[in-house]
Amino acid sequence: MGAEAERAVPEAEEWADIAPDAARRLVGAAVQAFAERGYHATTTRDIAGRAGMSPAALYIHYKTKEELLYRISGIGHEKALRIMEDAAAAGGTATERLSGAVRTFVRWHAEHHTTARVIQYELQALGEEHYAEITALRRRTDRLLRQIVQDGVDAGEFHVADVPGTTLAVLSLCVDVARWFSADGARTPDEVGALYADLVLRMVGAEWAGTSGR
Amino acid sequence: MGAEAERAVPEAEEWADIAPDAARRLVGAAVQAFAERGYHATTTRDIAGRAGMSPAALYIHYKTKEELLYRISGIGHEKALRIMEDAAAAGGTATERLSGAVRTFVRWHAEHHTTARVIQYELQALGEEHYAEITALRRRTDRLLRQIVQDGVDAGEFHVADVPGTTLAVLSLCVDVARWFSADGARTPDEVGALYADLVLRMVGAEWAGTSGR
Repeated sequence: MGAEAERAVPEAEEWADIAPDAARRLVGAAVQAFAERGYHATTTRDIAGRAGMSPAALYIHYKTKEELLYRISGIGHEKALRIMEDAAAAGGTATERLSGAVRTFVRWHAEHHTTARVIQYELQALGEEHYAEITALRRRTDRLLRQIVQDGVDAGEFHVADVPGTTLAVLSLCVDVARWFSADGARTPDEVGALYADLVLRMVGAEWAGTSGR
Repeated sequence: MGAEAERAVPEAEEWADIAPDAARRLVGAAVQAFAERGYHATTTRDIAGRAGMSPAALYIHYKTKEELLYRISGIGHEKALRIMEDAAAAGGTATERLSGAVRTFVRWHAEHHTTARVIQYELQALGEEHYAEITALRRRTDRLLRQIVQDGVDAGEFHVADVPGTTLAVLSLCVDVARWFSADGARTPDEVGALYADLVLRMVGAEWAGTSGR
């Protein structure tokens, strides 16, 4: 039952490192509330209520609503960066690294689509310093992907006229999975990841891309 | 001055058909408010205030906040559908039609990124009947694009293993332009449209795709 419930709610696992338990429950409640009503329409009272706590109990863990959004955004963006770091550091050709990066990145955005939506849509709601910190994480993720694409071009594996523009489009394609993905839909996160890895290899003009359709 | 102001605010032109003037101003004010604070955090009082009107004056034109969102969503989705209809009906090969569709669709999402964001992010806030009506428009747009892709496959121009999945990804890529596009950014709507037309022809394995990078 435990394992089954975990599989049914894969989003829960992403907060596993937050302690104590009350702080973790508040983050989960905040993500749900922000996703349903938007950041600005959500109050700390709403969040505390969803977590079965009082507003005063919330205040022990998070001084403001913005602090909760920052925490959520930080965990999400660090995870995205880690996926890209792992893919960049993996052995193999640029084709293999790009394929692996897209598969894992897309799978995460499908499995954690509620969190991913919140951190993308509510970016502007972060305070100035927090916004700067989060956009720095985004730039690092972007740079790592761009380097994989550039490595492929340099090695003659990829054929790309506009490396920054193509990198931007690839990231955008992967991130937008969070907007349309539904757990009730026709495709599993794994299937979307595999399809997208193939499409992205085509976008960069990889030598062996798209053979499945030919 | 008039023409210059219009060029500086290209989003205004999309409401040109709404009459009378007060109803048009309210729609413009609602888009701005929804984009900044989200649908649920916006009141009809906020919208009326932005339009320089009283809540009672708003009520003459729109009975509810949801009616305003529905109006905005309808205009935006009908425009997207019209772009796809025009591209599908255009002469030429599937390659030319797909390229034209992506260019125009992307340019619209870049130029009208604030409206496009609102109609994508706040879809769930529509009432049940309005939601059904809008998703029907979305399905028609999707079907038209899928048919262009299928035409290309049938004609031997494209090489696609998964036509529905690839169509979904192409639409997603184009729609997400609204999320990241900024008028202050490095690329114009035309430039993004041209880049994306090239990338999408690669995604469908078009025969002459990606020659610019080779």
